[in-house]
Amino acid sequence: MHYRTETDLIGQKQIPAQALWGIHTARAKENFPISGQTVHPELIKAYGEVKLACAQTNIRLGFWKENSSKADAIEKACFEMSQGLLNQHILVDALQGGAGTSTNMNVNEVIANRALQILGVKPGNYKLISPLDDVNLHQSTNDTYPTSLKIAAIRLLRTLEQNVVELQEAFQQKEKEFAQIVKIGRTQLQDAVLTTLGREMGAYAEAFNRDRWRIYKCEERLRVVNLGGTAIGTGLGAPKQFIFRVVDRLRENTNIGLARSENLIDGTQNTDVFVEVSGILKACGSNLFKISNDLRLLASGPHAGLGEINLPARQAGSSIMPGKVNPVIPEAAAQAALLVMGNDEIITHACSAGNLELNQFFPLIACTLLENLTMLNNSIRIFNKHCISGITANENICRKHVENSTATVTALIPKIGYESASRVVKTARHENISVKEAAAKLNLVSAKEFEDLIAPEAVCRLGH
Amino acid sequence: MHYRTETDLIGQKQIPAQALWGIHTARAKENFPISGQTVHPELIKAYGEVKLACAQTNIRLGFWKENSSKADAIEKACFEMSQGLLNQHILVDALQGGAGTSTNMNVNEVIANRALQILGVKPGNYKLISPLDDVNLHQSTNDTYPTSLKIAAIRLLRTLEQNVVELQEAFQQKEKEFAQIVKIGRTQLQDAVLTTLGREMGAYAEAFNRDRWRIYKCEERLRVVNLGGTAIGTGLGAPKQFIFRVVDRLRENTNIGLARSENLIDGTQNTDVFVEVSGILKACGSNLFKISNDLRLLASGPHAGLGEINLPARQAGSSIMPGKVNPVIPEAAAQAALLVMGNDEIITHACSAGNLELNQFFPLIACTLLENLTMLNNSIRIFNKHCISGITANENICRKHVENSTATVTALIPKIGYESASRVVKTARHENISVKEAAAKLNLVSAKEFEDLIAPEAVCRLGH
Amino acid sequence: MHYRTETDLIGQKQIPAQALWGIHTARAKENFPISGQTVHPELIKAYGEVKLACAQTNIRLGFWKENSSKADAIEKACFEMSQGLLNQHILVDALQGGAGTSTNMNVNEVIANRALQILGVKPGNYKLISPLDDVNLHQSTNDTYPTSLKIAAIRLLRTLEQNVVELQEAFQQKEKEFAQIVKIGRTQLQDAVLTTLGREMGAYAEAFNRDRWRIYKCEERLRVVNLGGTAIGTGLGAPKQFIFRVVDRLRENTNIGLARSENLIDGTQNTDVFVEVSGILKACGSNLFKISNDLRLLASGPHAGLGEINLPARQAGSSIMPGKVNPVIPEAAAQAALLVMGNDEIITHACSAGNLELNQFFPLIACTLLENLTMLNNSIRIFNKHCISGITANENICRKHVENSTATVTALIPKIGYESASRVVKTARHENISVKEAAAKLNLVSAKEFEDLIAPEAVCRLGH
Amino acid sequence: MHYRTETDLIGQKQIPAQALWGIHTARAKENFPISGQTVHPELIKAYGEVKLACAQTNIRLGFWKENSSKADAIEKACFEMSQGLLNQHILVDALQGGAGTSTNMNVNEVIANRALQILGVKPGNYKLISPLDDVNLHQSTNDTYPTSLKIAAIRLLRTLEQNVVELQEAFQQKEKEFAQIVKIGRTQLQDAVLTTLGREMGAYAEAFNRDRWRIYKCEERLRVVNLGGTAIGTGLGAPKQFIFRVVDRLRENTNIGLARSENLIDGTQNTDVFVEVSGILKACGSNLFKISNDLRLLASGPHAGLGEINLPARQAGSSIMPGKVNPVIPEAAAQAALLVMGNDEIITHACSAGNLELNQFFPLIACTLLENLTMLNNSIRIFNKHCISGITANENICRKHVENSTATVTALIPKIGYESASRVVKTARHENISVKEAAAKLNLVSAKEFEDLIAPEAVCRLGH
Repeated sequence: MHYRTETDLIGQKQIPAQALWGIHTARAKENFPISGQTVHPELIKAYGEVKLACAQTNIRLGFWKENSSKADAIEKACFEMSQGLLNQHILVDALQGGAGTSTNMNVNEVIANRALQILGVKPGNYKLISPLDDVNLHQSTNDTYPTSLKIAAIRLLRTLEQNVVELQEAFQQKEKEFAQIVKIGRTQLQDAVLTTLGREMGAYAEAFNRDRWRIYKCEERLRVVNLGGTAIGTGLGAPKQFIFRVVDRLRENTNIGLARSENLIDGTQNTDVFVEVSGILKACGSNLFKISNDLRLLASGPHAGLGEINLPARQAGSSIMPGKVNPVIPEAAAQAALLVMGNDEIITHACSAGNLELNQFFPLIACTLLENLTMLNNSIRIFNKHCISGITANENICRKHVENSTATVTALIPKIGYESASRVVKTARHENISVKEAAAKLNLVSAKEFEDLIAPEAVCRLGH
Repeated sequence: MHYRTETDLIGQKQIPAQALWGIHTARAKENFPISGQTVHPELIKAYGEVKLACAQTNIRLGFWKENSSKADAIEKACFEMSQGLLNQHILVDALQGGAGTSTNMNVNEVIANRALQILGVKPGNYKLISPLDDVNLHQSTNDTYPTSLKIAAIRLLRTLEQNVVELQEAFQQKEKEFAQIVKIGRTQLQDAVLTTLGREMGAYAEAFNRDRWRIYKCEERLRVVNLGGTAIGTGLGAPKQFIFRVVDRLRENTNIGLARSENLIDGTQNTDVFVEVSGILKACGSNLFKISNDLRLLASGPHAGLGEINLPARQAGSSIMPGKVNPVIPEAAAQAALLVMGNDEIITHACSAGNLELNQFFPLIACTLLENLTMLNNSIRIFNKHCISGITANENICRKHVENSTATVTALIPKIGYESASRVVKTARHENISVKEAAAKLNLVSAKEFEDLIAPEAVCRLGH
Repeated sequence: MHYRTETDLIGQKQIPAQALWGIHTARAKENFPISGQTVHPELIKAYGEVKLACAQTNIRLGFWKENSSKADAIEKACFEMSQGLLNQHILVDALQGGAGTSTNMNVNEVIANRALQILGVKPGNYKLISPLDDVNLHQSTNDTYPTSLKIAAIRLLRTLEQNVVELQEAFQQKEKEFAQIVKIGRTQLQDAVLTTLGREMGAYAEAFNRDRWRIYKCEERLRVVNLGGTAIGTGLGAPKQFIFRVVDRLRENTNIGLARSENLIDGTQNTDVFVEVSGILKACGSNLFKISNDLRLLASGPHAGLGEINLPARQAGSSIMPGKVNPVIPEAAAQAALLVMGNDEIITHACSAGNLELNQFFPLIACTLLENLTMLNNSIRIFNKHCISGITANENICRKHVENSTATVTALIPKIGYESASRVVKTARHENISVKEAAAKLNLVSAKEFEDLIAPEAVCRLGH
Repeated sequence: MHYRTETDLIGQKQIPAQALWGIHTARAKENFPISGQTVHPELIKAYGEVKLACAQTNIRLGFWKENSSKADAIEKACFEMSQGLLNQHILVDALQGGAGTSTNMNVNEVIANRALQILGVKPGNYKLISPLDDVNLHQSTNDTYPTSLKIAAIRLLRTLEQNVVELQEAFQQKEKEFAQIVKIGRTQLQDAVLTTLGREMGAYAEAFNRDRWRIYKCEERLRVVNLGGTAIGTGLGAPKQFIFRVVDRLRENTNIGLARSENLIDGTQNTDVFVEVSGILKACGSNLFKISNDLRLLASGPHAGLGEINLPARQAGSSIMPGKVNPVIPEAAAQAALLVMGNDEIITHACSAGNLELNQFFPLIACTLLENLTMLNNSIRIFNKHCISGITANENICRKHVENSTATVTALIPKIGYESASRVVKTARHENISVKEAAAKLNLVSAKEFEDLIAPEAVCRLGH
């Protein structure tokens, strides 16, 4: 194998001759064999977009004007990065120390070497195109990394919004489908008053509707970026013109309404917006967990459980018990939700633990936030596709519960009053007959009247 | 001691004759000797407001019209509750089981007995005024409790917004006061580039400015209430007119822009808005923690620390070490912040663990959310009053750091270039002299030029 | 009101003439109006024990020998503190900043003034008995506070062990009582294979048996104390003889096997044992949550739920639904468990956030750890007393589930083989008859054989 | 591409003809595109060990005796799995729903097909060797999965113990190396009393010593396994002889002191031991976080920080600031620690959320626990190798702090008394001279005496 020699402030290192990454990446690989995970692909692509906007702004301001083929090559390499074409060269561990420097340097090296390649020059010829002096020109990890993270998060949030909308619609479809199925509602897991299966589904749709709105609003919080602030937000080392133009360029390229932070010092050191966004994602996780568990409960059985609905059978559930099918999709969704809620703790404490002019734990924030976005996207997609859209109702079981439960008597009160209702309960218990039968036996409610009182319209009417 | 006898579905109990609470409260006292804490006073007052609106709506709709003195007495007792005058009669443990039933029943009993008292009748005469049939008329724990919680939370949020504004202003005051003090900024706790102490304070002000905005927006999320939904959101047992009017009345009385949830089923069972609000409070906690720790660091010393600022001395710090003063206020604020962040986990999991038509863990949600609001209010108030507003700068130490730190050389680069700057660093290190002296010795930067390059205006100029 | 004047390094303050607390308490009251909660009574008593051991050691070493009535008075006041007789004079907020200094100073002041009172001298005469020079002699907050916390925690742990044992025994009692009740076991909430209600109760007993053992072992971890280390563990300011003897004295007085940390520097700054102990308590909380929820599920109904057991009715559950009784005790226990699990996050991060020679967040650690111990003690006690010991079985429902559920067919496999078992399932489903009936109809299993195959002994036999 | 057809209870599926996995794996791949991560390699290997012990026990008991080449092939395939040779065929997502069924089925299919391959038969010929009837014979996911997880965790714990021991030794080495370097100790980040840099390192060694012990003891908790319990712990479907022998075999093979749970029902459903073990790992994470941060603080600077130690330079820190080197290794370790602490929340809630006879969230528990073990192993290894072992001291800065800090005066008190010490402080402050100079000027402490009082022996002597 052939090698080239590269140098940094620590010393020299042999780098495989054809590698697009260089010595800083090699150091990081040695330093951080921690999580075994590489940087999230959306973060790499977003970093490409940031580098592209920087390169284009530098070109516009006349840098590299003496060598337009060099400028073109850099721009082209940045573009390729933004399209995800260079992902395989970003090798550093996602959980690196150093506030993201290693990711930035890996990106810089790959862009520089890819640009050299485009020019037909061997990797490593940094006199011609330098990772630092050219690709990183007028930038710092401390402004490019958080900016890239925000773009990556926004892209995943937009997908998430779409996934949540589709989930909401699936529940709304079930709301209509089950509108006529009357059932016992339960509070504190005890039989309470009548409702319909449709209204239960409608409540889930409504919860995800709030998530949709929250997720949509999230984007606003992430649009304010600190690009141009360089090391600590004073813009040291960058020309004024660059600072004023680069975010505009990035906004045009990404088609995201990005804006430069009015206080770049604050924008570089304070990370509360990530806590905020993570909190919003967690609220979605919280709904997902609650609703997954509700479905597991409603589908429990088939004989010794509530058994009011059936979830689509997705796979065999047991090698010992023939025909057993388990609610594996809600279980998967609930697990994703638990992960999202726990990761929120990590994000919160990583953000809180920042010191002075910079948060040193940015890689952990990035890693965990993007994992949460990915998890929610994936789990909500399968929750909808593999579960919700295929739910069917066990109307007869719902009906049986209604007829047998003394809770149903509450529906008769408007007609027969509290006193008589109590007599119905006593009779039903004493003679071990259904509420319907007891009410008929006491000549209080005829079969027809009973049906009217527990009809979906009666049950869903708001008040009396 | 004299007693009266009360009855519930379990049986009978002796109640002290003059007690305004009754058998349901007594049961709860026996059942839940758990936290030793009573219900948050703001929740009691808010419950009083809810009961008052219900009573007034019932009166308006003609209930109790046969007995206007009874109606007046109930209304008056509700009003007293809403003013906090009956707090001492609410004895149930804040962490009761039962989704809040015990709090509601304690409130009902106290209002009923207080109303009887107003009429000159002995407590316990529930034939005349009943806790259930009168005070709780057309209501359920499941709609009154969450509605009361939202009102209590909004009231505390409004105070919090004010406290955060004042804290932000205190930091802005310091921003101006320290605008001319140049200092070394630090990233990853290593000397980085120059900034001013004023800009550091300004960044903190900006972080709390976001909190202020978030807290302000929070209120919107809490304004949608499920009052009128009774047990599970179908409004069972309540007349239509009551449901349509009661929230209007509550809105007028409270002067909070409350609205009835469009989907009361959802509004009764799903609690994601509390997760959302708690997440917002946690973001504030996160800023508070980060900034408290920054201040502790900047004030570390007095001789063997950073020593750039002085916090007001608030109390003696040690019995062994004469004159030691500790940063007790930021420590207290940081602890409150840790508590708020941890409580968010509790709220999240309590909300996620709800089953079907109701969240059975409402008392825990209420308890923890109101604790977080109280903690943030108290800690931000003292943080401002006892610490921020009294911070002074150690200008000479900031200056000494600037002169000595090789990091300062970055400020000279625009003038002398990277190469010469590196020579300055080497000379300073080699001869153990300051950067300023080294630059002068190498004839690169005169004393006057040095001063210009590290002047506040130069340091704060965005880009070059 | 009469006042006396006291002085500290900040200046002077007027103190109510008869108050046993002094200026340091007054400062703390002003500085920390945060949580509104006072110091946990067990911590105050344990502090009294620490002060008593210190005073006795100082006496033994000849301090105050010129004035034996002074020595006696100090010793007596310390003793009173250790008996909880002076709790009402400890006024500082539990969540104070300052690593516990304010609690220590409040204790010192109260002991000094109480000793003066014993001598018939007015409070505030610190020339005679000084809170610092006498009561705090050879001590620091940094060694007395953690030592007191450990003693308080051990006392509460011992009670907890007892409560857990009693809970375990209650479950064992139910194990025996329900040994003959065969029922459907459920995995992933789906009907699985047969078990008995007794074995379910036995599994819960076993889980709490592990808690009991863990809690018992916890004490070991807390017995190593840093008393004698003073400010940072070097023992600065304390005589060797004091350091060597004081823990022995404390051990004798408390009857707890305390030992001096071999590395007092470590013992003063590192707080991982609290993380460890909190983790153990959380494991108990985790069992409590899981088992509470299981009981809520098993008791769900009465008609539209699983309905296999009945929990004791403890209070009326609803004003709208006559006769509704809710599982309020498991709900309360589950809430306490959620709190304990969330508080563990607070403890962990408070411990992790310590800096250098001391953890500055000790009050938060103390507050939260003791809250968790109290919560577990209270909730386990009521869980046992108000719920577990009164559980009854719905044998007929368990039986009905067994007869009807196709899951029961698994029990027939050893007798009739997998193929025939599948035919039984098909027949039962197709003709909508019970498994028992289907097996009889196909002439595969007689009624007698069926009974044998689902008999408790058959179900509980390990393997075939 | 060629395909074979496989069938399950849902229907048929085309499987690539040469694939060692089968239809259950294919279903799981479709159902759970969630985390994108495959099952942890240690879990796959441990699963191989469990399958091997089961196969060997079945062989011993005479199963497959009619076909010894089949038996040999199964055994050999299991062995290969246990050696990690078949990892690449385990394709299911680590975060699958279904309590681990998909992992078990993937393992069963791969072993069956690999055994067929060994016999020279094409994959998919399940009549000859069946994933279910042969490989899974007498087993269930519900006993094999938790057993495998415990073995995997024990293996990683043993490595972790070794890594922690080495870290402890590295700190002990530094303790000796820095034994003579006197420095200012700090409490609440304020200058406190004298200590030595060696003793600081010794305290860290001691903290990790506790971790070592705790981690060592952890293994005990995990050694109790539920193998043989099949679906819910009743051993249904397994012969008695199998149940009694299989764990013995597994113990012999693994050389881990495994034991069968005395209560297999409990062992199958309750997961508190994972909460316990996670809590222990978190305590280690907590120490790692605290100590990483301490080192970052002590190494802050180089000019405007504490600057008492130097961490090894591992990579360039900044593109803008020449020569800046950041504490990237402690930052990486601290991030791993934050992750471990947050993951503990996930494990806790996943364990708490189990229902009745099984915990349905086992994949999440496994995933997160093994991630924590891997993270701690990796981060502690690099923390030691890349950081601790290369720490050097800045003795002159430590000395300067000692001479200048008024905190040093505390060391003079034993010699000159509190009053004179206070005068020294005042003089030093007033004339802006060092404590040493002030003490000399006042003729209180000669230079020689001063040196004696701040000598390492004096500072480290316990008490006076």
